[in-house]
Amino acid sequence: MTQTLIASEKKSFLIGFDRPFCVIGERINPTGRKKLAAEMQAGNFETVIKDALAQAEAGANILDVNAGVTSVNPNETEPPLLKQTIEIVQSVTDLPLCIDSSVTAALKVGLETAKGRPLVNSVTGEEEKLEAILPLVAKYNVAVVAISNDETGISEDPDVRFEVAKKIVQRAADYGIKPEDVVVDPLVMPIGAMGTAGQQVFRLVRRLREELKVNTTCGASNIAFGMPNRRVLTGYFLAMAASHGMTSAIMNPLHDEDMHAILAANVLNGTDRNCKVWTNKFREMSVPAAVSQAVGDGLPGASAEDVERRRAREERRRRRG
Amino acid sequence: MTQTLIASEKKSFLIGFDRPFCVIGERINPTGRKKLAAEMQAGNFETVIKDALAQAEAGANILDVNAGVTSVNPNETEPPLLKQTIEIVQSVTDLPLCIDSSVTAALKVGLETAKGRPLVNSVTGEEEKLEAILPLVAKYNVAVVAISNDETGISEDPDVRFEVAKKIVQRAADYGIKPEDVVVDPLVMPIGAMGTAGQQVFRLVRRLREELKVNTTCGASNIAFGMPNRRVLTGYFLAMAASHGMTSAIMNPLHDEDMHAILAANVLNGTDRNCKVWTNKFREMSVPAAVSQAVGDGLPGASAEDVERRRAREERRRRRG
Repeated sequence: MTQTLIASEKKSFLIGFDRPFCVIGERINPTGRKKLAAEMQAGNFETVIKDALAQAEAGANILDVNAGVTSVNPNETEPPLLKQTIEIVQSVTDLPLCIDSSVTAALKVGLETAKGRPLVNSVTGEEEKLEAILPLVAKYNVAVVAISNDETGISEDPDVRFEVAKKIVQRAADYGIKPEDVVVDPLVMPIGAMGTAGQQVFRLVRRLREELKVNTTCGASNIAFGMPNRRVLTGYFLAMAASHGMTSAIMNPLHDEDMHAILAANVLNGTDRNCKVWTNKFREMSVPAAVSQAVGDGLPGASAEDVERRRAREERRRRRG
Repeated sequence: MTQTLIASEKKSFLIGFDRPFCVIGERINPTGRKKLAAEMQAGNFETVIKDALAQAEAGANILDVNAGVTSVNPNETEPPLLKQTIEIVQSVTDLPLCIDSSVTAALKVGLETAKGRPLVNSVTGEEEKLEAILPLVAKYNVAVVAISNDETGISEDPDVRFEVAKKIVQRAADYGIKPEDVVVDPLVMPIGAMGTAGQQVFRLVRRLREELKVNTTCGASNIAFGMPNRRVLTGYFLAMAASHGMTSAIMNPLHDEDMHAILAANVLNGTDRNCKVWTNKFREMSVPAAVSQAVGDGLPGASAEDVERRRAREERRRRRG
């Protein structure tokens, strides 16, 4: 059974088949957040701290940390800023981290700074990346996100993306990195641009799991890029992908839609033991048996609002009692 | 490509792989609705008519019609009542029907009454049922729901349920009924009682599709029986099952949670061409680009409420313009 161990100094999380879905909080990332980028550049980490705490509170299992504030001279500026950001995040939360950068020097500094066993985000199938990142992953004995594109770009053909993933897993093995420490991102296309994008991912996830025995991840919201009601669509995508065996996602734990999808997926995949997490979370939403019966019977006036009202009344009575 | 044609006098719907998910409205059913049962027994069809119209409005593709108001002498009482109910439903809606009864005589009368090509609900793997129902299905050249239990009851072993389904499909073939006219219900257990219930269904649906080439259906809400926040859980189950190839469900189209799940599943399975249905439904929920950008940037005060307020302002401006 494939399991990827990710850990901070004090806390660990196993990403795995037959394990609850792993929520990697995406918020600490200045890409597309100009204000956050400006803050971080100015040495102001208030938003970073707020995002770290809020995501932990919302149920994130791992926090992604990215400090790519500028495309100007990132090789010089990003490593120290990533180091500082990781130190600050580690000082306010116990959660394991996902060190996220496209700059090899920054990943290196990140690996020196992060305690425990972080996840490295990411390597691709590009030769240059493989040669730069995999030795680091091996040296620090950590796990790595493998994105299934290479020098030729992102293929629209899922079979090509599978082959790229396979190549990365094989190359990782050459460095002594086990398949369980390669978490493949099969790349999620926007469904608005490609109607087969969902089915591609479901099939790819099953193949990656069955043939390569690897855990999987994705940038979840990309599926619904440009679509209305994006969060709801992203949530259903997450649940569907999880049912095909996707084991983690880089996502926004502050979106209830996404988190409810994960909780439901855990119940329906049988990884929320005795449905404990779901039941604890939504216990309050149980409709008292008597009312439920009345609604089932179609008693006059037993609308959803009535049920809500009765529930509130019950609640008040209980508190008084 | 397996396609099951279901039709009324004027409207048809193809249940099929690579087709939008088929919503079979469950509301016209007095089981567990004492007031509706009493009404129907008294010849009052107001609720039946209301439920027919509301389900059609909500997007049902087929309406299930059940007139099992009593367990006392149903062989005598149910056939005429089912006939009357079908006539009334047909008089207020064009939707194809699913004739639902455990009484063979009632199914027979239903088949004489329903126009077009209804779906018969249901046959099981019980010898007595096979011999009673399949000749009717063949005679009227209609499609039938095949529930995968037999004389020994409902097996908790999904492989046994698969074999029961296989037997029904084979027996149907003996009567000249094609696999495409057998819509298998693999039976959904409550997840609260059996943690593997979801995974069982997902796997069964894939096998039924790949090995028997049949369409599938289920009583969707059963999965979440006894669970809090039941509707939301049912919705995620529907989307997940649809992603494994389930092609229809007997469900409540008046529950937004269920219908949104179906719409999302259609998008993500690529059966909502150009995401047209989803986009039309939720267009209003698009966040204007400028606001979206501001939120992305984490501008102060850009909370969800702010976005909503700005959206409303934009909307008013557009109308004035």
